[in-house]
Amino acid sequence: MHAVQARVETVLDALLPPANQHPARLHEAMRYAVLDGGKRVRPLLAFAAGELVGADPARLDHAAGAVEMIHAYSLVHDDMPPMDNDVLRRGKPTVHVKYDEATALLAGDALQTAAFDALTARPLADDPVVQLGMVRTLARASGSHGMCGGQGIDLYSVGETLTLPQLELMHILKTGALIRASVALGAACGTALSDDERTRLDHFAKCVGLAFQVVDDILDEEADTATLGKTAGKDAANHKPTYVALLGLKGAKDKAAELLADARAALAPFGDRALRLNQLADFIVDRRF
Amino acid sequence: MHAVQARVETVLDALLPPANQHPARLHEAMRYAVLDGGKRVRPLLAFAAGELVGADPARLDHAAGAVEMIHAYSLVHDDMPPMDNDVLRRGKPTVHVKYDEATALLAGDALQTAAFDALTARPLADDPVVQLGMVRTLARASGSHGMCGGQGIDLYSVGETLTLPQLELMHILKTGALIRASVALGAACGTALSDDERTRLDHFAKCVGLAFQVVDDILDEEADTATLGKTAGKDAANHKPTYVALLGLKGAKDKAAELLADARAALAPFGDRALRLNQLADFIVDRRF
Repeated sequence: MHAVQARVETVLDALLPPANQHPARLHEAMRYAVLDGGKRVRPLLAFAAGELVGADPARLDHAAGAVEMIHAYSLVHDDMPPMDNDVLRRGKPTVHVKYDEATALLAGDALQTAAFDALTARPLADDPVVQLGMVRTLARASGSHGMCGGQGIDLYSVGETLTLPQLELMHILKTGALIRASVALGAACGTALSDDERTRLDHFAKCVGLAFQVVDDILDEEADTATLGKTAGKDAANHKPTYVALLGLKGAKDKAAELLADARAALAPFGDRALRLNQLADFIVDRRF
Repeated sequence: MHAVQARVETVLDALLPPANQHPARLHEAMRYAVLDGGKRVRPLLAFAAGELVGADPARLDHAAGAVEMIHAYSLVHDDMPPMDNDVLRRGKPTVHVKYDEATALLAGDALQTAAFDALTARPLADDPVVQLGMVRTLARASGSHGMCGGQGIDLYSVGETLTLPQLELMHILKTGALIRASVALGAACGTALSDDERTRLDHFAKCVGLAFQVVDDILDEEADTATLGKTAGKDAANHKPTYVALLGLKGAKDKAAELLADARAALAPFGDRALRLNQLADFIVDRRF
């Protein structure tokens, strides 16, 4: 895992514009937002899915870089004053605090674009039609039908009481869609899967995506700010709906365990080829930050 | 021209998510930002370039829709308080005024994504490798090497004295890159051009893009807010560098005329096939709003 994380860091460094390129402040901010931070869950999933299909790591570099840049842009914009107004991210000042709001706005915009640039900078699949499908998958997962839509539901539900299905829909869009895209993009870089195999892989990703969010809610409740590297207890303070609020701490933990079992079951027919994906699912549920 | 504008309106309406789709406020804001406004210069250029190469209008719909959604997203974010803090656009309240800043941020983000979605929703070129190139062209034109980079230079040059080459670089990136991409995307939808023809077409687009900006500066100086549909005299008030500030009003008008002549000359070998592009160049330079 550490080897892949280190590789992803090198890839992101190469995909991002150099810090001294004009306008330097924008490019510095883009690099600050992406480099040297985060667990790289989405790139790890892309690489693990790629391993399942024997994908060329040089292709996976671009798929992994693209999903991480989308994730990074969403954090930059999410942290801004009109949204979460947060000052700390990955243990460092957020981009709008370190730079300024206009730069954060622009850097997030340019990072989103850079993701689509990365997905088209070289051949990533045996068939260019498959690669066009990868671009579309990332777009659908990121836009108002996916991540942005989930952010919107989150935004408009502050102070509201969501039901469990409503909360689930929000998370399936807000974090789940990009996690599913990470797995799908990694898998698209190698030997084609059957429809059944693709469905199983997507079900795995859907469960892992939800589990990721359930665990996030548990950590927001249990961990402290120093461990998290971001402000702890924020959701409760903001009256945001969480799994812990709806299910209680024990209920949320049971839910995470169920999702993990469901995720692992979906991959059973792949046998050892899914080893890395299963390890990642364990890591996502057992993490402490 | 009106027929193409009407067609583009229908296309954008179909490409955008329905207003009643959850979360409705986000989708309403996206539609508000794009529909019923603007001269549609970029879609018109895409259609005119497509006509030059006999492109299927159903393909051009998506190319034109994509560039216009990128343009619209950039206006939404540009108008926000950390950037230009403007309240009026196309004669209507800006998105963050009509809705709220968080919605404007998200709607802009989702519109950028929707552009890449539109470019991959159906086959747009005879060769899928060409279509991947279209995605890349749009990404390069929109990101920190293009439009966002130009916005950054603009942002960081407020109150500075730019030289003419510096001002030109800013505009080549800020508005020129997307205008060139509009022409390139339209041309990619039809019969392949020779390298020389593509270079000529791109030179045309580069000149038109700069002329567009020179005329914008002239109008900002000469026209009133009601005619423009956006706040007039804003650049001077914000101490932003403009062609008029650097060259004087007469110098700026001479510059626009030179660029128009240069643009038309580049298309001379195409003969009548370039009629529509030439008409558009005239329109862009002669417009009063």
